[in-house]
Amino acid sequence: MRLTEDRNAKGVRHRGFVVGRDEEEIPGALWTPIEPEGAALPLVLIGHGASGSKHQDYVRSLARALVLRHRVAAAAIDGPVHGDRREDGGQDGQRQFLDFAAAWSSDSTLTDGMVADWRATLDALLALDELGGPVGYWGLSMGTILGLPFVAADARVSAAVLGLMGLTGPTRERLGKDAARIDCPVLFLVQWSDELFPRSAAFELFDAIGSSDKRMHANPGTHGMVPDEEFRHSGEFLAERLVTVG
Amino acid sequence: MRLTEDRNAKGVRHRGFVVGRDEEEIPGALWTPIEPEGAALPLVLIGHGASGSKHQDYVRSLARALVLRHRVAAAAIDGPVHGDRREDGGQDGQRQFLDFAAAWSSDSTLTDGMVADWRATLDALLALDELGGPVGYWGLSMGTILGLPFVAADARVSAAVLGLMGLTGPTRERLGKDAARIDCPVLFLVQWSDELFPRSAAFELFDAIGSSDKRMHANPGTHGMVPDEEFRHSGEFLAERLVTVG
Repeated sequence: MRLTEDRNAKGVRHRGFVVGRDEEEIPGALWTPIEPEGAALPLVLIGHGASGSKHQDYVRSLARALVLRHRVAAAAIDGPVHGDRREDGGQDGQRQFLDFAAAWSSDSTLTDGMVADWRATLDALLALDELGGPVGYWGLSMGTILGLPFVAADARVSAAVLGLMGLTGPTRERLGKDAARIDCPVLFLVQWSDELFPRSAAFELFDAIGSSDKRMHANPGTHGMVPDEEFRHSGEFLAERLVTVG
Repeated sequence: MRLTEDRNAKGVRHRGFVVGRDEEEIPGALWTPIEPEGAALPLVLIGHGASGSKHQDYVRSLARALVLRHRVAAAAIDGPVHGDRREDGGQDGQRQFLDFAAAWSSDSTLTDGMVADWRATLDALLALDELGGPVGYWGLSMGTILGLPFVAADARVSAAVLGLMGLTGPTRERLGKDAARIDCPVLFLVQWSDELFPRSAAFELFDAIGSSDKRMHANPGTHGMVPDEEFRHSGEFLAERLVTVG
């Protein structure tokens, strides 16, 4: 892991990093308390949605809330064809969205690649002195498409927030199989009038999740209208579980 | 309003009362802080489910949590054919359940009677010195069948927890119309494998609720398996709204 940035902003230490995996460089960001106070901090990995990046507003604000309200560290990496993985640094949201849609349809290694990226990132982060507590995952939409398989694959993840996705799309079958393997506590979010992934498909994916300890929160509105309340709830949900595990 | 009981138990003042309405005596219970400290307290009205009563475990424990954790008063009344409205005082849960089912099917005044009971009870309670803050309603299953119409009818209710019910049953049409008139914040609870009111009907009722500020929480399990987490959430939900309104 190579640090690209290290600064304090409004009470939170923010580091930029790059993790190498095979030929790939994975660009990431890490948020921790300025004074970690010795104990091994819990860590939440945040998977952004299509068209976004590790630095988009809701990723940053969720990460800051985890650190400041719950003393839980947070990290995010750019997904495939997003952010600093692109030559243009991810300026064009719509372009990234379309590139992701194309890759999702045509690149059969997309999911396994992102699972490997998350695992390599987690390996590197857990080697840091102040980390080493329980690990959670938070990712909606593309963050579920590529993150649910990671949650299923990596036993270090002990709580997850997933959603804005259904048993649908090019990797539908894979998602269903991986969902069945998940056994950690899950909060699953649904937008009632989701225009990308209809709620009926979301209900199927929720149903497929193997965990007995799961719950679904549904809110009115379209795909992008997740209310602030659910960001707050999901932070509290993860913090509570990770502290219980730890 | 006539007091039938007044005692302090484990940090909470508990009063029994009877409110008269026409020929009817409505038996109720009120939970308040032992030291109300002057301010007009918010109040949550709790409608129990079929086979239960104003004194059943979850009513009492929700009421105590509202008082102790949130400094919100709580009150419950026995529903029709339940509790102290019966000669036997409501000893036989199954008998009450069957009597309610029969009344629901055959007595066209059942809903209006309970709405009038709640309104008379609220009039009487708000005349007490320590009450007078914002009012919320909490009721699942029969507590929604008979309580949703009250929430729709009484503008004093400014937040509600409803659920374990769908657009189904003898009063289906009335429920749909009343749901559309509700415009306060609503938390709607669904049990994923509800054997009494299937989730598809619950989704329809959630959909019918007129409020833009609404959310649905769904949990695994059958009708009676609402997890403790949702009792806690729903108390927090109401307390937050009532304090915001006040």
